[in-house]
Amino acid sequence: MKSKSRSNEGRYAYEGLDRVIHERARLSVLTSLITHPRGLTFADLKELCALTDGNLSRHLRVLEQAKLVEIEKGQEHNRPLTVCRITSMGRKRYADYLSILEQVVRDAARAGNEESAREFIGDLIPSRS
Amino acid sequence: MKSKSRSNEGRYAYEGLDRVIHERARLSVLTSLITHPRGLTFADLKELCALTDGNLSRHLRVLEQAKLVEIEKGQEHNRPLTVCRITSMGRKRYADYLSILEQVVRDAARAGNEESAREFIGDLIPSRS
Repeated sequence: MKSKSRSNEGRYAYEGLDRVIHERARLSVLTSLITHPRGLTFADLKELCALTDGNLSRHLRVLEQAKLVEIEKGQEHNRPLTVCRITSMGRKRYADYLSILEQVVRDAARAGNEESAREFIGDLIPSRS
Repeated sequence: MKSKSRSNEGRYAYEGLDRVIHERARLSVLTSLITHPRGLTFADLKELCALTDGNLSRHLRVLEQAKLVEIEKGQEHNRPLTVCRITSMGRKRYADYLSILEQVVRDAARAGNEESAREFIGDLIPSRS
């Protein structure tokens, strides 16, 4: 409980935790798309993310406006088919976001009381002897 | 882009991503507290999380109402001193939350194009041969 030095300013602030990506449904959509580089249909995304039509549309609009995803409206067997893909900017922003998530996991593991995280990152964290 | 089987229902939904914890400022506060099991003063938390007085108070209130933190108002050298600690329920909920974050990192790594995540989790992810 003693005062911290100035070097601790914002130590756990996680400033890089991009608000557009951090929202749970959008994190879900972007992770689905990053694992499917050829794109996913609206129906597939809805299923993978367990979102309603309205919610998925709303979050896709936010992601499209931020230029993180692109949405292609076409046809297949004379039926409308919407295909969503992550953009190269989306990949870059997602990678930056992910590096902050990893930092959170590392910080929690360093607390020395988060067994799951410790097993996860294994030998990467030096033991506090 | 082919249809996914039913087994993919909610595959990337991350249902366990606790909304109380996921909000960036609260994630910041809880990670600070989990790394300081003896507690942190209001001033220390403010610094570590780079939050204003008002924002920190607001988020602490949410965390206290959810019984994830406890706040002790005392005195030191005749001056008021507020000390915040994570509760045992807070630890449990944070650990559950963290296991979902780890799943996000694993899923992104599996995409095979997230170098940082791949280095991070190393040999834990089997190669897709």
